[in-house]
Amino acid sequence: MEFRPKGVPWKALPDTARIGPGGLEVGGVSLVELAGEFGTPLFVLCEETFRSRLRRYLAAFGEGNVFYAAKAFICRSTAALVAEEGAGMDVVSAGELATALAAGFPAARILLHGNNKSAQELAAGADAGVGAVVVDAWQDIERLEELGSARGRRLPVLVRVAPGVEADTHSYVNTGKEGSKFGFPLAEGMAMEAVGRVLSSPHLELLGLHAHIGSQILSLEPYSRLVEVMLSLAEETAAALGWSPPILDYGGGLGIPYTGEEDVPSIEELAAVLKGGTAAEAGRRGLPEPRVAVEPGRSVVGNAMVTVYTVGVVKRVAGGRRYAAVDGGMSENIRPMLYGARYTALVAERPEQAEEEFHVAGRHCESGDVLVDGVLLPRDLSPGEHLVTPATGAYGYSMASNYNRVPRPAVVSVAGGRARVVVRRETVEDLLRLDAPAGVGGGWKW
Amino acid sequence: MEFRPKGVPWKALPDTARIGPGGLEVGGVSLVELAGEFGTPLFVLCEETFRSRLRRYLAAFGEGNVFYAAKAFICRSTAALVAEEGAGMDVVSAGELATALAAGFPAARILLHGNNKSAQELAAGADAGVGAVVVDAWQDIERLEELGSARGRRLPVLVRVAPGVEADTHSYVNTGKEGSKFGFPLAEGMAMEAVGRVLSSPHLELLGLHAHIGSQILSLEPYSRLVEVMLSLAEETAAALGWSPPILDYGGGLGIPYTGEEDVPSIEELAAVLKGGTAAEAGRRGLPEPRVAVEPGRSVVGNAMVTVYTVGVVKRVAGGRRYAAVDGGMSENIRPMLYGARYTALVAERPEQAEEEFHVAGRHCESGDVLVDGVLLPRDLSPGEHLVTPATGAYGYSMASNYNRVPRPAVVSVAGGRARVVVRRETVEDLLRLDAPAGVGGGWKW
Repeated sequence: MEFRPKGVPWKALPDTARIGPGGLEVGGVSLVELAGEFGTPLFVLCEETFRSRLRRYLAAFGEGNVFYAAKAFICRSTAALVAEEGAGMDVVSAGELATALAAGFPAARILLHGNNKSAQELAAGADAGVGAVVVDAWQDIERLEELGSARGRRLPVLVRVAPGVEADTHSYVNTGKEGSKFGFPLAEGMAMEAVGRVLSSPHLELLGLHAHIGSQILSLEPYSRLVEVMLSLAEETAAALGWSPPILDYGGGLGIPYTGEEDVPSIEELAAVLKGGTAAEAGRRGLPEPRVAVEPGRSVVGNAMVTVYTVGVVKRVAGGRRYAAVDGGMSENIRPMLYGARYTALVAERPEQAEEEFHVAGRHCESGDVLVDGVLLPRDLSPGEHLVTPATGAYGYSMASNYNRVPRPAVVSVAGGRARVVVRRETVEDLLRLDAPAGVGGGWKW
Repeated sequence: MEFRPKGVPWKALPDTARIGPGGLEVGGVSLVELAGEFGTPLFVLCEETFRSRLRRYLAAFGEGNVFYAAKAFICRSTAALVAEEGAGMDVVSAGELATALAAGFPAARILLHGNNKSAQELAAGADAGVGAVVVDAWQDIERLEELGSARGRRLPVLVRVAPGVEADTHSYVNTGKEGSKFGFPLAEGMAMEAVGRVLSSPHLELLGLHAHIGSQILSLEPYSRLVEVMLSLAEETAAALGWSPPILDYGGGLGIPYTGEEDVPSIEELAAVLKGGTAAEAGRRGLPEPRVAVEPGRSVVGNAMVTVYTVGVVKRVAGGRRYAAVDGGMSENIRPMLYGARYTALVAERPEQAEEEFHVAGRHCESGDVLVDGVLLPRDLSPGEHLVTPATGAYGYSMASNYNRVPRPAVVSVAGGRARVVVRRETVEDLLRLDAPAGVGGGWKW
């Protein structure tokens, strides 16, 4: 039996995906069995794929320079896994910070991000002893100075620059452009002013500069431009302020294959552009070579997860269009609606069978709740079979809602033929828990 | 002092919105005080506005014909309020059904919807004794027949028709078009076939027909066409099957003012088109006049709520663009990103002051996380002031996520100068609760 036949989107699936006697397997476990054991919709996380991507980043950029972007997906077990692999973490809220700390993640390996950090979040970061706070606005600098002053120590920071580099990606995640809400723009000398301000502060320690140009980037060219822009800024700070950044953090953004048909640069190719480019540009300008840091999220966890659904209604509508409706939808994967993201799907029981076009609809009360707008599936697809959408690890569960009062799925981690729940499935009782207990007269009076 | 000066988007705000000594008030309570007491972001629900919209629907369509669409916003207290006013409810999932039942909502006044109801959901509906299940696909009919047969009674149903009427609204919520995932299309005789099938079933009782053409509809013209289409179908069923629908349920979809500048048909104008049109069309065709039912959601709760935020970072970026960042964003209002929805904003402390253009950014790590893309606010807007976005009652909280591990806000109901929490604020502990407790080695082994 052939384990990886053609016609299956292997590039989008976890590294351990295989076809076994019961259909598609991940981490040595049959997805159909997982669905039976844990119910659907179900997120299945392949630990090996996650670890392997992180290790490649660590090998390419060096320990201490890789910060997993928690916003893509985080839970306590995943935080512990990132810690175990020796990577750092990029968090953007008190909730992400608390999750990391609850897993015993070493605070010194955490970067605290955010365009609007509250005073409480900054204090929580300072008190935990995070590796650096990435300052994004004057208010960050002012608040951190107060916190550092009150604590009698210099708080380590990176200055986030809006580099004015436009990546060819969805405008919602094109974070690097001028006019974005993030960082200090290069224009009008704002970034330079921020660097000067932090350097002159007795309460802050400037570790380096940060920039992030966007998400799901499929070409390395914008990264090359980013390197040039940042080294050009470094040359200016060296000349004007006598400070050249010891660290350049280029953020994340590397794209992944969603349907298996995309051409995606590798982690190693990204490293060649960022590290090699930085060394070359620094040398050319006579600057000391900065350490190069990155914050991968999607490119670590994206292809490490799949979602398993149960097919419910199969229907043909006017014009011959066929729908396969599954028991999830925009509540646990809003990316098709939010970004027009393209996914593919296959049947867990018979993954090679691609015969007729179906539209994979969710269960939510909106016409737009369609997960895959056209994919070949078995002609006789039947209710009760299981549909698998690959590449749902990033911004899937992390953006999940309870829309239509649908409980959120479980996340199960698989490795070496074993499965364990890392995020348990919600119940209807979980949803009701937040509601004031009584009816019209209920709630707590003010 | 003038309580409702010009320059404030009164049309988008709750009916009870006024300017008092402490700034903007809703339900006789200062929003600034509410923010201080309950924290921000905070959803504030004006009970009077909610009740008044429901009462107008009940007056216009008659008791028994108004089903509040829970998907717009539901919690136990709101379900009890809908029950108290004498309206019915449209639910689309086991979770919405459970919420209604937990509030003591009478099951006979509930309609169970959904394009992909599970066998369990259908059984839950049948066991609770819902007023009708709206059948959307052949599988619904088959499953209900089994359930009715097993229970030895006829289960009441409506047949959902895809009427092929296109409303001029966002394609995601344009539910009535041909090729939508919802209902039985008129084309190729599918709707007629479904009616015949249900009529001939000894286990089902056909109460009428259902159709829904979309959401946030600002013109009554598509409703007129819908009436014609449905009465034309009624004429066909009368001729072919000897059955004319006793009930026509036209769904919801009436638009609301979001920025206060939209022209929106009134509830009474909608009733004139739907009820008047149905009576006239039935008369013209010699059919008995059907009862006309509707399922309003947005037009009941949309303008009944506002969201109160605290301003954090205020920054100017390249080109003079100014951002006011608030402590929420796409996690509790994803509509600007999902549908390109336009909102407005005002400062609770000084609502009339509209001087300079700001972009109201959320706190989430995406460039697209901008709640209001350009609105006039006070020139000297400062961190700590409170921003209010009107018209956030529908598809705001109900679509809320924990993106970036941000806990979901509280919902506070206000009336007569008093406030009570109807949905409590989440905590970071609530988020961690679903995570497997331990780290790498943790979780429950399989």
